[in-house]
Amino acid sequence: MGDIEKFQQERAELNELVMKYAGLGTKRFYSLDPQAYREGALPVKTKEMLGLLASFVLRCDDCIKYHVIRCHEEGISTEEFEEALFIGLVVGGSITIPHQRRAMKAWEALQNKSADQPISP
Amino acid sequence: MGDIEKFQQERAELNELVMKYAGLGTKRFYSLDPQAYREGALPVKTKEMLGLLASFVLRCDDCIKYHVIRCHEEGISTEEFEEALFIGLVVGGSITIPHQRRAMKAWEALQNKSADQPISP
Amino acid sequence: MGDIEKFQQERAELNELVMKYAGLGTKRFYSLDPQAYREGALPVKTKEMLGLLASFVLRCDDCIKYHVIRCHEEGISTEEFEEALFIGLVVGGSITIPHQRRAMKAWEALQNKSADQPISP
Amino acid sequence: MGDIEKFQQERAELNELVMKYAGLGTKRFYSLDPQAYREGALPVKTKEMLGLLASFVLRCDDCIKYHVIRCHEEGISTEEFEEALFIGLVVGGSITIPHQRRAMKAWEALQNKSADQPISP
Amino acid sequence: MGDIEKFQQERAELNELVMKYAGLGTKRFYSLDPQAYREGALPVKTKEMLGLLASFVLRCDDCIKYHVIRCHEEGISTEEFEEALFIGLVVGGSITIPHQRRAMKAWEALQNKSADQPISP
Amino acid sequence: MGDIEKFQQERAELNELVMKYAGLGTKRFYSLDPQAYREGALPVKTKEMLGLLASFVLRCDDCIKYHVIRCHEEGISTEEFEEALFIGLVVGGSITIPHQRRAMKAWEALQNKSADQPISP
Repeated sequence: MGDIEKFQQERAELNELVMKYAGLGTKRFYSLDPQAYREGALPVKTKEMLGLLASFVLRCDDCIKYHVIRCHEEGISTEEFEEALFIGLVVGGSITIPHQRRAMKAWEALQNKSADQPISP
Repeated sequence: MGDIEKFQQERAELNELVMKYAGLGTKRFYSLDPQAYREGALPVKTKEMLGLLASFVLRCDDCIKYHVIRCHEEGISTEEFEEALFIGLVVGGSITIPHQRRAMKAWEALQNKSADQPISP
Repeated sequence: MGDIEKFQQERAELNELVMKYAGLGTKRFYSLDPQAYREGALPVKTKEMLGLLASFVLRCDDCIKYHVIRCHEEGISTEEFEEALFIGLVVGGSITIPHQRRAMKAWEALQNKSADQPISP
Repeated sequence: MGDIEKFQQERAELNELVMKYAGLGTKRFYSLDPQAYREGALPVKTKEMLGLLASFVLRCDDCIKYHVIRCHEEGISTEEFEEALFIGLVVGGSITIPHQRRAMKAWEALQNKSADQPISP
Repeated sequence: MGDIEKFQQERAELNELVMKYAGLGTKRFYSLDPQAYREGALPVKTKEMLGLLASFVLRCDDCIKYHVIRCHEEGISTEEFEEALFIGLVVGGSITIPHQRRAMKAWEALQNKSADQPISP
Repeated sequence: MGDIEKFQQERAELNELVMKYAGLGTKRFYSLDPQAYREGALPVKTKEMLGLLASFVLRCDDCIKYHVIRCHEEGISTEEFEEALFIGLVVGGSITIPHQRRAMKAWEALQNKSADQPISP
């Protein structure tokens, strides 16, 4: 199991744990969260990049990784991804560089994974 | 002179002061900054929204106001603007609400200003 | 009109503006927010102090002022208030001191206001 | 040795290292820190929740874990714990979710640990 | 009364207010704070620049202004001041730019003030 | 291979990955970064301490470790190092303590490493 799969499995397991204890308020927040990224006046792709940038400048590795995966799923190109992170780098400064490194490592893993997958007939 | 014009004039005056004292490094940073928002794989409009979101969750009123103005200049619709800020609100939490209020006040001022301007012949 | 009343009026006006533009998501967030401070396993008084501390270490003056007013309304004593802010000062460091000053100024204003009000017959 | 014990041992070892090098100022700060959580106008239980919330919205996993353990020692109920974190989630936004997951994991570990311990005769 | 004097007077007044309400803990913190900037293995001048940088990247205008004044009092040159802020700009990113502008405005005010003062006989 | 060497190797590998994908903007930022720490009106030693403090209060472990190594290379004494971190502790508060622990662990590793190295003839 690769790094991406491990991340997603652990995330799912811990989300289940949060829900086990969650009160009504926490449950509502967790259902509000995906609503922010749904198709609307802005396309999903743009919204995922906005979520990525917000996570990037706030420097949360788990949040960044989640949005890197989502951006990849939405078909964002490497050039678009890099340009988005560059904005984050300029706004957030060199303190974001370790997060940029890890974001790029996740991106690379996703590229290689895509390349490995045979085209389904 | 309206609030927006006052903001832009003060910003220009203080930028001049920064440049008066700036070393080569600071000058290079200030010329790198606009490069991040230039047309590329991503359109300027998307880049300005990314800058807005980054500024919003980092809660810098001056930076938010600057990008609100730029988003308006790039023709972002009110729906797009609101959806972008909603992502910021979910990611950044209720601590961003005072900034959302002021961002909306600036947006409203920009709308009214546009409405006031006679269509040039 | 005192500083506290001015703050509350401006807050109400801008909230109205946010709601004028708000999509369904933003509206849900704004209705989720007060839910966090409602009586539950923890009393309202404790919850307001938790909101105060969170706002204090995140250094948002408007959020701090709002919770200072709410703490006062919930009958928190000056000793309790001061002890809560001291925890914020230790956790958040001297960078919170300007916010502590302004929080204390708002507290003082609330104390004087209470003292001024005649006991209604 | 469980995760909680490992955390506490490593914390103790590194504190010793800090003290080995500490000047008078650092030593004073380290003795001021526990003073903030001592019984006063506010009970220890409330103070530990305030420390938890401050650590939660500032997103420091080690600090959160420490206060989760202390909250558990002070006999905070699961409902109280969950309500406190919900305030943190609303104030701090979805960027705190990974920390909420890990806080809940630590809470679960503490619950299981308590359940395992035989009632001393 | 200039901007610098007004800032210092307001700061002194509010500090007095904090002290009026302060418990023993808060008082100890306030006496620990100046200890951090006292002559030691590092000279006061370096320590004030360290305090300036910390305040700058944490983006607290009042704290920045305080350390700008102290740096000026310690005889830091304009070149040294600008180089220190450039490090802050690179580490903290463009989000620090509005603070850099205001820091420079305070610096300019201090330069002009020094120039105005007649050399005492 | 010790912890310091592992850190430096991983850092170098990931920097290479960032550069593989980097656009012109990102490349320029990465070349601007070392410029901030070059000899100027302020000596390199002071600049590295400024970078350390900025990283410390912004609580980025990788950035802290990098500057701890650089401070050691520039011949900063243990007393100077400890005094700098004490300023960070006071400004940034107890939330920085876990980072102070890890900074001290890295410092200790560097001291031991230096002691191990035979004096070259």
